[in-house]
Amino acid sequence: MAQTPVLIILAGGASSRMWPIREKSLLRFGTEPLLVSQLRRYQALGFQEAVIVANPENVDDVSAMTAQIRPMTVRVVVQSEPKGMGDALLQAAPALPNRPKTAIYVNQVHDVVDEQLHTDILKAYQASPETSFVAGYEREEYFPGGYLIVSPSGRITGIVEKPGAANKPSNLVNIVAHVHSDANRLMDALRVEYARDLSSDDHYERAMDVLMKDHPFRVVPYRGQWNALKFPWHVLDIMNYYLSMIQGRHVSETAFIAPTATLVGDVYIGERAKVFPGAAVVGPAYIGADTIIGNNALVRNSMVLNHCEVGYTTEIARSYVADRCSMHACRVLDSVFSPGVNFSAGCTTANLRIDHGHVSSYIKGQKVDSGRDKLGAIIGADAFLGVDVMTMPGVKIGAGAQIGPGTHVHKDVLNRQRVYVRQELTIVDDIES
Amino acid sequence: MAQTPVLIILAGGASSRMWPIREKSLLRFGTEPLLVSQLRRYQALGFQEAVIVANPENVDDVSAMTAQIRPMTVRVVVQSEPKGMGDALLQAAPALPNRPKTAIYVNQVHDVVDEQLHTDILKAYQASPETSFVAGYEREEYFPGGYLIVSPSGRITGIVEKPGAANKPSNLVNIVAHVHSDANRLMDALRVEYARDLSSDDHYERAMDVLMKDHPFRVVPYRGQWNALKFPWHVLDIMNYYLSMIQGRHVSETAFIAPTATLVGDVYIGERAKVFPGAAVVGPAYIGADTIIGNNALVRNSMVLNHCEVGYTTEIARSYVADRCSMHACRVLDSVFSPGVNFSAGCTTANLRIDHGHVSSYIKGQKVDSGRDKLGAIIGADAFLGVDVMTMPGVKIGAGAQIGPGTHVHKDVLNRQRVYVRQELTIVDDIES
Amino acid sequence: MAQTPVLIILAGGASSRMWPIREKSLLRFGTEPLLVSQLRRYQALGFQEAVIVANPENVDDVSAMTAQIRPMTVRVVVQSEPKGMGDALLQAAPALPNRPKTAIYVNQVHDVVDEQLHTDILKAYQASPETSFVAGYEREEYFPGGYLIVSPSGRITGIVEKPGAANKPSNLVNIVAHVHSDANRLMDALRVEYARDLSSDDHYERAMDVLMKDHPFRVVPYRGQWNALKFPWHVLDIMNYYLSMIQGRHVSETAFIAPTATLVGDVYIGERAKVFPGAAVVGPAYIGADTIIGNNALVRNSMVLNHCEVGYTTEIARSYVADRCSMHACRVLDSVFSPGVNFSAGCTTANLRIDHGHVSSYIKGQKVDSGRDKLGAIIGADAFLGVDVMTMPGVKIGAGAQIGPGTHVHKDVLNRQRVYVRQELTIVDDIES
Repeated sequence: MAQTPVLIILAGGASSRMWPIREKSLLRFGTEPLLVSQLRRYQALGFQEAVIVANPENVDDVSAMTAQIRPMTVRVVVQSEPKGMGDALLQAAPALPNRPKTAIYVNQVHDVVDEQLHTDILKAYQASPETSFVAGYEREEYFPGGYLIVSPSGRITGIVEKPGAANKPSNLVNIVAHVHSDANRLMDALRVEYARDLSSDDHYERAMDVLMKDHPFRVVPYRGQWNALKFPWHVLDIMNYYLSMIQGRHVSETAFIAPTATLVGDVYIGERAKVFPGAAVVGPAYIGADTIIGNNALVRNSMVLNHCEVGYTTEIARSYVADRCSMHACRVLDSVFSPGVNFSAGCTTANLRIDHGHVSSYIKGQKVDSGRDKLGAIIGADAFLGVDVMTMPGVKIGAGAQIGPGTHVHKDVLNRQRVYVRQELTIVDDIES
Repeated sequence: MAQTPVLIILAGGASSRMWPIREKSLLRFGTEPLLVSQLRRYQALGFQEAVIVANPENVDDVSAMTAQIRPMTVRVVVQSEPKGMGDALLQAAPALPNRPKTAIYVNQVHDVVDEQLHTDILKAYQASPETSFVAGYEREEYFPGGYLIVSPSGRITGIVEKPGAANKPSNLVNIVAHVHSDANRLMDALRVEYARDLSSDDHYERAMDVLMKDHPFRVVPYRGQWNALKFPWHVLDIMNYYLSMIQGRHVSETAFIAPTATLVGDVYIGERAKVFPGAAVVGPAYIGADTIIGNNALVRNSMVLNHCEVGYTTEIARSYVADRCSMHACRVLDSVFSPGVNFSAGCTTANLRIDHGHVSSYIKGQKVDSGRDKLGAIIGADAFLGVDVMTMPGVKIGAGAQIGPGTHVHKDVLNRQRVYVRQELTIVDDIES
Repeated sequence: MAQTPVLIILAGGASSRMWPIREKSLLRFGTEPLLVSQLRRYQALGFQEAVIVANPENVDDVSAMTAQIRPMTVRVVVQSEPKGMGDALLQAAPALPNRPKTAIYVNQVHDVVDEQLHTDILKAYQASPETSFVAGYEREEYFPGGYLIVSPSGRITGIVEKPGAANKPSNLVNIVAHVHSDANRLMDALRVEYARDLSSDDHYERAMDVLMKDHPFRVVPYRGQWNALKFPWHVLDIMNYYLSMIQGRHVSETAFIAPTATLVGDVYIGERAKVFPGAAVVGPAYIGADTIIGNNALVRNSMVLNHCEVGYTTEIARSYVADRCSMHACRVLDSVFSPGVNFSAGCTTANLRIDHGHVSSYIKGQKVDSGRDKLGAIIGADAFLGVDVMTMPGVKIGAGAQIGPGTHVHKDVLNRQRVYVRQELTIVDDIES
């Protein structure tokens, strides 16, 4: 049997479209960061060696996280500038084992797929170790990604980017789940492309095009789930994926569940968590360690990570709430909270347009359709929202921002901005006179 | 025994004073529209024939509704213009059975009274089938209606409209529950009045005055409840009447009541309704089919009809909520909601004046004292209220209106109007600097 | 054994710094006013005679209250103008028993201390009835009060006011818990000081200084709790003191506790109080007679006195709520409510600064640091707050004030002021066109 390919996980891409969410690799959807969770799964499938391409900002965290993975051999390299996926792979090259014809399996940390994809692609490679493989996501409706051009014999002859719905060469969308049967051959092709010094940054795709002429690339079709962290609301999709993996009831022995509290469906309750009288946790739901679900609060279809306070009559629905958030008598709906957010009494994340249309959000100045009927707010780390704040659907609030009491937030608020409203009051002395 | 009179139900009057509530006859106070509910009751009392006077707008609905009444014979006629009660009766004339001396029993669909009144008037008629009868509502304090002038022998000699408290001829107020022992005689008298072509529209009253000279009219006194649908808040009075008829606990077998939910007092729970954990329904209360009472919600002294969502921590108190309303973390107090209202999180219908005085409302431009210490909002069909909207006591909101988030509604909002408030925000960059 | 000293309770000081809280002596922390509660405790310790110094405003109430104390002999005198503590004692002089060498024990009604202090000082006096005694509150960190200067032999040689942290003569702060072994001697010394007619109002302190030269004054050290009612938020400290005295569960037999309600910890539930389904009372907590805790409400670490309505989903946390307050779907946090406050749906007392610093409040025009991380609002009697009002931390609202719906209260509101906000609305007709 052929050697299992070396895993290359691309974890160095810029996350600016994810603002105000920081660092995708560090996001936790349960007890472990996304990167660690992915690595453990690859390990369970038989991968023994991995190279992770980090960036200067996240390399320390990535190194710390991956130090704990055993017995897999994990090396971390740094891509110092965001010069594209081809460059990222070239940074990984020196960290690869010095074996002839080393096969690599290239993945992105922020693509979350079913285990089945990895299993299928691994099986295909082992049956034909001279061949390279590309996962093809079967999808009927058009998607603005790369489409595989596949010959009748099943060989991939090219990848065309965003061909338009009318010109789809197939119904197979390129997922970055690629096995290259000979890493050196790929690296050589990449170096050629970088030497050509073209302005476009699609060196990896061009190198693939060249290689496909002489070497067999075959498609491994995939019909499962594919969730990619491209925009911040995708955190909710990934969350739902992880929530769907909670089966049954897991209540930590050190947790406290009041007799009049209610747990419904598939629920995970972490260490020392407390669910107070009259509160309900409706699955699928994940409650992290040391988190308190206060009296009469409701958490449903949500993740609330560690050390959070979900105060009296707080509702969290279909939302992702990271560590150390503090909420009180408020409504967190279809929203993503980074660590340390303070959401005060009377606050609401409005989540529905009056016309019931898709909610949009601005990403780097461009209006982007989230594709969601319901979307609340995306809030950065340690933002403080005073009492009675209302955020409009799809609004984003930067890290460390402060929103004054009673403010309606209609537009994104930058990191460390303070926004407030002043009322003009009328004062009448001595009511009786 | 004399033949039971033919019932004439006046259901064609204009409802403009009821705005934004549409069509009184269609209002449901339980599983059936008011008109159907009234018809069934008359049938149970022995009435076998009825003529309903509809208007061009409601005739289709009225016909459809009454098609299901069996074995009573129901005919529907249309009054094409609102030319008064006399004209309405003349429209009914051709639909009456072709019998000599047909007696008729005239009622209005929007007068809701105890069964006792009908029983007493029927008994009086059967004891003396040559006599006509008028119900006299016994009432000590003055009421701006028509007062019966009654001779010592008990014969009615006239009806005086709004005589003033000092000039009341009796303590008997005219309710439209009139038995005329000979319909043709009445119709003839009405035709005479219409032929005179006076500007006032009290033809029916004038015809009665004329008839009283030659034919005996006697009073049937009544001391029970009388609720008339004249202004929209009267929906709450009629609701209370129907709520008082719920005796004990009726929970449909297909309903779901969570173990930690609480039902108190006389409560009706319809088919497939759900009452979630921590919620309470405090009687008298009616919960319609397919309606969901969410976690920790509270419904008391209210009707919530079918297919409603009463979301988490929503309170509905002393209110009427029609089909398909959606409410969430809000407070519906002493209010009337037409079908399809969306009442978002944080909304409140303020129901109490600071001075604790009676709440007023504007009806066709005139300020009208509702006579109620507590009155919330009257909201038309499919109105959408965004989060944190507050309505002042007695405010009315038109059908299809849209109210933006955080708006305080101090005045009536017309059908299909959009009302919103914009805040002027102060934005400070980089808090630390 | 020496005769027990005559108790003198100073209850006539001006309360202007306590605005909008009226009359400290009348404040109830349980079933009885503070003054009565203190008197009962002294009586239990063996005191048989007391003179209370009232002022013209409270003398009637004080007389009425103390009429019920038996078998203690209580006399009430009036200090007609606020001319200092020395003057107050001189008013008490004629009411003292006509015995030679009458000892007196001087206390202030608004100093709440542990029983131990009184026990210790009484024991010291009885062991040495010729000596006078001053309680010395042992305290390491500096406090801006009077410090005792004590000789090595334990004799007090003087009291220095606010010496500054660097110049503390001891770690013993003067509490007004003073035994004078001969009242006449003190009165004579006071008369001398008033005759000197100096501008400063520290006659009592000067008289003590003079007396200490010739007569022994000794310290009785005290390490227990000391809560003084100086500023209105101190009501919360005294409340906590009284709450800490509730041991275990006391539920009146006439109270109603719903099966799904929850009582936690040390809780007192008064006569005819009702705790409705889903509500929770979390101790230490005191619920007064005839008070209703509505569905799903939460009261914790609070006192709610008599005849209050704590409506559906109302939260009261760490707050003092006097008689007849009405609250509904609101949040009362770290606040003090005088009798008869109406706190409407959606109201919140914001209690936390964005910078998490100490909350300040203005007292007679001066900004005063409350020393508290969390402080809500202080609200005077019969104030009416409309729906969705938000008070900023440390704000005070005068008696009879009215706050319009949706108002953010950033500054103190005077007695009987009306404050409201008007929104400028945009109205668009006929949404579809």
